[in-house]
Amino acid sequence: MLFCTVTVSAQQALWGGQDIISPEIHPDNRVTFRLMAPEATRVEITGDFLPTQRRQTPMGEMNVPGVVGLTKNANGVWEFTTPEPLAPELYSYSLIINGVRVTDPNNVYMIRDVASVTSVFIIGGGRADLYKVNDVPHGTVARRWYDTPTLGTSRRITIYTPPGYETSNARYPVLYLLHGAGGDEEAWVALGRATQILDNLIAQGKAKPMIVVMTNGNVTQRAAAGEWERGMVKPTLWGDTRMDGEFERAFPDVMRFIESNYRTLENKANRAIAGLSMGGFHSFHISKEYPDKFDYVGLFSSAFGVSQVGISPIYDNLEEKLRRQFTTPPKLYWIACGTDDFLYQANIDFVRMLEANNYPHVYFETDGGHIWRNWRIYLTEFVPKLFR
Amino acid sequence: MLFCTVTVSAQQALWGGQDIISPEIHPDNRVTFRLMAPEATRVEITGDFLPTQRRQTPMGEMNVPGVVGLTKNANGVWEFTTPEPLAPELYSYSLIINGVRVTDPNNVYMIRDVASVTSVFIIGGGRADLYKVNDVPHGTVARRWYDTPTLGTSRRITIYTPPGYETSNARYPVLYLLHGAGGDEEAWVALGRATQILDNLIAQGKAKPMIVVMTNGNVTQRAAAGEWERGMVKPTLWGDTRMDGEFERAFPDVMRFIESNYRTLENKANRAIAGLSMGGFHSFHISKEYPDKFDYVGLFSSAFGVSQVGISPIYDNLEEKLRRQFTTPPKLYWIACGTDDFLYQANIDFVRMLEANNYPHVYFETDGGHIWRNWRIYLTEFVPKLFR
Repeated sequence: MLFCTVTVSAQQALWGGQDIISPEIHPDNRVTFRLMAPEATRVEITGDFLPTQRRQTPMGEMNVPGVVGLTKNANGVWEFTTPEPLAPELYSYSLIINGVRVTDPNNVYMIRDVASVTSVFIIGGGRADLYKVNDVPHGTVARRWYDTPTLGTSRRITIYTPPGYETSNARYPVLYLLHGAGGDEEAWVALGRATQILDNLIAQGKAKPMIVVMTNGNVTQRAAAGEWERGMVKPTLWGDTRMDGEFERAFPDVMRFIESNYRTLENKANRAIAGLSMGGFHSFHISKEYPDKFDYVGLFSSAFGVSQVGISPIYDNLEEKLRRQFTTPPKLYWIACGTDDFLYQANIDFVRMLEANNYPHVYFETDGGHIWRNWRIYLTEFVPKLFR
Repeated sequence: MLFCTVTVSAQQALWGGQDIISPEIHPDNRVTFRLMAPEATRVEITGDFLPTQRRQTPMGEMNVPGVVGLTKNANGVWEFTTPEPLAPELYSYSLIINGVRVTDPNNVYMIRDVASVTSVFIIGGGRADLYKVNDVPHGTVARRWYDTPTLGTSRRITIYTPPGYETSNARYPVLYLLHGAGGDEEAWVALGRATQILDNLIAQGKAKPMIVVMTNGNVTQRAAAGEWERGMVKPTLWGDTRMDGEFERAFPDVMRFIESNYRTLENKANRAIAGLSMGGFHSFHISKEYPDKFDYVGLFSSAFGVSQVGISPIYDNLEEKLRRQFTTPPKLYWIACGTDDFLYQANIDFVRMLEANNYPHVYFETDGGHIWRNWRIYLTEFVPKLFR
């Protein structure tokens, strides 16, 4: 096995590998971060496990993740250990080397949110165990392309089929799961841990086996950045986002594709639609536009208060369409928002409107803002309620 | 649309976004790299587009990517522009901030090779156009789990089905495509651009539509790092690699799974197996162990010269098994290697052995070493020759 030994050393030399573990999760769930940087004069870390700081932003005063310094030891390795154990959660962080924010070079696990890539790790336990890959049966995740005659093109889509789908002859209910502005058909899998949440909830008997369909909600974008012919351009938050009614108008193409390509249960009782932020806005409009289609509607931190009236027929006659939808109301109309969310008041106003009209609904509130931590929580809360 | 404007600014503030483009590919294919780092005193770049440097490594003197400095401008932005246009290729690089090697924070496109993550970009043209996502019909890429009774577990697998697979009733030939040591079932998709190469070659009529099956060749690893219950551990080059014959012994389980779950053409003329380095070693042993199964064998920079005789019956009676295999030789037995590869001499020796025995084969040589650039080239050369 000389061959092997030689190769290991060589590759480490070639690839500049540092024999450093970062992050190191200790048995008590304190976490140590490390960076070999003998020449740096200042190394800091920022992440959502740190106490937030109140900062002035263009959206007003907000809580943003804090920043703390690492300490350099005699070997040129900078270190920071959290003073307290971290609560179960999927955390993201960046290192800051003399003012430059970078991912942790010793941690290969990263997620992209629009044009920002951060390092991630998971502290298990409680709800966060749903975000981990556990030793349970795993579903299949496929990236496919579907034709959408309404938009005159083909578009990329991510589809989760539950464990056993391929070997059974059963038909399955479908959850359509929509992302927010700046997201794409990769967002719920990468940031939302949808694959793990579904695998785990199904294995625990807490969710019915279901197909989950993750679309790209930006109608001028055929696929996520780098996954279509536009090339490896830098993703932007609003570059392809329109909210002009076209996504909602073309949505029946998605349903037709799914129902003709998968063994689905094709009725209102077996369809759910949910989304975050812009995806909540989309889910709201799609569910009212096609009122006989969805018995389960999940609106996570939704972009209510964005009036697009006049931009598309989709957005006209809102009150009348809602009245029609709630003549035979969905079995579950579920709204969730965080108290720190900049859309919090708009969500509260929406819930009050539902109350004033006696439209059956459930409102679920958390702390925190317009963040993926909340959307993962909402997914774990929403999915077990479906198709019952 | 006030909502949108406000959000954009806020997110930029929240995410620390810098309005910097890096890499910027100029119309003449020179490339500029940029990093905002007012406090740094030294910023360098290393990448495979730079002239190599001869360096002493544990494997002897080798060509390794060079390092050049960036220059700081008055705004604290460091820049480097390649003096010459770059030839068409997929390139990878790292920035080095005061000695710390990091990915480019302004480039979201990265690939992981074992425990190293580097930034990537593509200069189009020529063969490199095969690595780009073009406006052509796209196949489906699925991550699934299959049962392997031989190993008594289930394992993750990546499967490419060509455009039109789902809507046709046709049966397809299958290419089994194996990774090297330190790789996994993600390697050929991420580093090898297998999806793009297949989509493009098929669209150009240069390759037959085929199913491509990308296994995990490390038998003690159920899935790529982070994709199974071991958790988000740091990947290692040899941690799960055995080369103990178990992968080869269990390979019929993979074939059974594919042939019972996909519409395949189930005969020797419609099966190919290829792999790089350890995957070449695997392909060599599997093709000779099951001599009636594969009419197309691709051995890319293969780990010949690694004698595992005595470790498994798979590795015994090599000469006799080869003689049996070449009694009815594969239609294509294709060996490729780079002249800088540390396995070059072992590959030359192997080719001489084939010649000495009059075993029909094709040898394809490139410059360069044991690198993904070569394996992408070999895939683009090999795939058009299949199933003719």
